[in-house]
Amino acid sequence: MSFNLRIVLVEPLYQGNVGSVARAMKNFSFSDLVLVNPCKLQNEARALASHAWDVLDGAKIVPSIEEAIEGADVVVATTGITGLKIDEHIRMPPYTPQELKEKFNGTNGTIAVLFGREDNGFTNEELKLSDMIVSIPTSDIYPIMNLSHATTIILYELSQIDAGEQQLAEGFDLKLLHEHIGELLDDIQYPEHKKEKTHLMFKRIFGRAQLMPREVQTLRGFFGRIQQLVK
Amino acid sequence: MSFNLRIVLVEPLYQGNVGSVARAMKNFSFSDLVLVNPCKLQNEARALASHAWDVLDGAKIVPSIEEAIEGADVVVATTGITGLKIDEHIRMPPYTPQELKEKFNGTNGTIAVLFGREDNGFTNEELKLSDMIVSIPTSDIYPIMNLSHATTIILYELSQIDAGEQQLAEGFDLKLLHEHIGELLDDIQYPEHKKEKTHLMFKRIFGRAQLMPREVQTLRGFFGRIQQLVK
Repeated sequence: MSFNLRIVLVEPLYQGNVGSVARAMKNFSFSDLVLVNPCKLQNEARALASHAWDVLDGAKIVPSIEEAIEGADVVVATTGITGLKIDEHIRMPPYTPQELKEKFNGTNGTIAVLFGREDNGFTNEELKLSDMIVSIPTSDIYPIMNLSHATTIILYELSQIDAGEQQLAEGFDLKLLHEHIGELLDDIQYPEHKKEKTHLMFKRIFGRAQLMPREVQTLRGFFGRIQQLVK
Repeated sequence: MSFNLRIVLVEPLYQGNVGSVARAMKNFSFSDLVLVNPCKLQNEARALASHAWDVLDGAKIVPSIEEAIEGADVVVATTGITGLKIDEHIRMPPYTPQELKEKFNGTNGTIAVLFGREDNGFTNEELKLSDMIVSIPTSDIYPIMNLSHATTIILYELSQIDAGEQQLAEGFDLKLLHEHIGELLDDIQYPEHKKEKTHLMFKRIFGRAQLMPREVQTLRGFFGRIQQLVK
């Protein structure tokens, strides 16, 4: 195992951006590119990919974010600063790209970083699929970055990561843990109007904490025991 | 910000790149753009500048690097990794963008950062006009970055000189949370021999996650509810 970065572009509208992202990926020695329902990729994408046709041609095209993040251990969504002001519980707390690098330094596993549409970013439902939020600190006056520029900054920061000994918990086990928490919130009759927020909060906290495999098992045992007692 | 960053593009060949650079500058709140003998700037430059027409229109056009760096206190030239292998005395030592940021933290004055031609970079004579060299750490296989991508990384690093701080939960509230978890482990008759390890695990996880004040309150509410039900 080693550190693998997957770049996921969600419904990119402009093929030039996709080509530019492929080029930037190759500049920083990454190649795992997944495109969710992309625009048509033709000559302009290839021209802007420059010498990174291998990355562009190797991109996996899928119809949903769920498929794009399959096999990833941690899912990170990028949002603009302006987005942070609405739906705080979904978008907080945001990490800077540098903090993301520090967080994953010395770990093994696959991190998928998601980039939203050029015009509309992500829906809230899409953002809930992520374990962590990263936001590039930009100007308040004009925070909207070009898609390939935003990607370049993430690639630049995360290319500085040294893979280490620490194995991240697998995405699949985390998914089971989160389902477990969902059930538990039902079992303890947690107030309906708070349920979703609290569930998401656990996802974010455990996402930030970068759980180790044994911790996930212990947490599941802990929650399982509570469930038994409550029932 | 206590310093002024000037971006100097030397004989850029593609107007799209100039427009993209203007946009990235505005994203990071910079506006001092100087172009040395640029290509024609027409519709494509304006399209890619997006909402940064003010930066593009405000760009100063000059016939020489000497004029472009007039009034700058420090001149930094960007070179690719490959360039470092030749003419070492001119190109060494290269700073990373991050080192550049650290270097200029807390200083006053104007730094001019020069970017060379998309195809041929700088001549040695031109490089000698710079006080420092910065080089973005890239792949050996394909180190040649798009001009606006390279500029974006420099802007990103140098804009970060005063990063903000996230409000963390107070130690006292965390302590209450951990006491709470300890009581809960008793209440649910968690196996005695595992109790201490599991308690510590929560401490580690929540420590790493750097909880926010509101999250601590929600967690305590959650655990309190379980306690009520279990008793």
